[in-house]
Amino acid sequence: MTNEVLESGPIHLQPATEEDLELLMAWRSHPDVYRYFYMQDGPLKWEEHYRFWNSRHDRVDWIIYLDDGNRKRKVGSVNATNLSNDIPEIGIFIGEVTLMGKGIGTLALSLVVQWLRTRGYSRVRARISKDNTPSQRLFASIGFEEKGEIHDGAEWIYEKLLIDDNE
Amino acid sequence: MTNEVLESGPIHLQPATEEDLELLMAWRSHPDVYRYFYMQDGPLKWEEHYRFWNSRHDRVDWIIYLDDGNRKRKVGSVNATNLSNDIPEIGIFIGEVTLMGKGIGTLALSLVVQWLRTRGYSRVRARISKDNTPSQRLFASIGFEEKGEIHDGAEWIYEKLLIDDNE
Repeated sequence: MTNEVLESGPIHLQPATEEDLELLMAWRSHPDVYRYFYMQDGPLKWEEHYRFWNSRHDRVDWIIYLDDGNRKRKVGSVNATNLSNDIPEIGIFIGEVTLMGKGIGTLALSLVVQWLRTRGYSRVRARISKDNTPSQRLFASIGFEEKGEIHDGAEWIYEKLLIDDNE
Repeated sequence: MTNEVLESGPIHLQPATEEDLELLMAWRSHPDVYRYFYMQDGPLKWEEHYRFWNSRHDRVDWIIYLDDGNRKRKVGSVNATNLSNDIPEIGIFIGEVTLMGKGIGTLALSLVVQWLRTRGYSRVRARISKDNTPSQRLFASIGFEEKGEIHDGAEWIYEKLLIDDNE
């Protein structure tokens, strides 16, 4: 769907490839990562992970690279989904769990927000677990606003306007 | 130290490279993996992981590949250390945590035991957490015997003779 590399300072986003599957699975199997996933309550099985990968459509999954000046490494993943809808969704996780809360998410999300803006979308959504305060703060910090809830309140909808916005 | 690929049925061992660092770190940061590591009680920080990698000596770390008939994927790591001593040590973890207990460890360990045997070592050791019953059973199943304890009993020493042994 895209091959562009997106860059902001030490953060680079590159579309994930099949080579990244084991790493994505290892990240998504860590309790500090999956505990906020609505559809997952334990580490992944390969078959479900591979099925997810092969049935992906209408979305882009990027690997978040961090260049620490010494080496560029993979630290997490960000995605844009529902790209054929008017309002796409954005999702993110930091896989290198000891890097959580260090500002990587802000940079990575801003890159994807900008990518969506240049593609002409006028708003973007995120679904965030009601318990995921760090993520709620993160999305709020880049201009997302709470708009409602789904799944009987288990997840909150956040939304951001992409037009008339001076970010 | 070695470039050989070791194979046994669906299991292939290939020396780990710098490309595998993020995956090794993600695996070693999972609580189901590190809870049995004597020197680790939380997820890793990149700096300590990278320092460990660059200061490795006298050891081989292999990636365990599983070929499921459809795709060959990375599922864990096995290592042989203290290779300049008379009695090397062997260590293993399954990183794909939902594959634990499925026999991968038995095949991978047997390959490394055989590799050590052909290199002329007459015995091999393992240090296993006293709480790690699955690993104790695994090593016992391929002929290791309990020989004593260290760290005030926190770890048990297992040992296997590599000569006069018909495995």
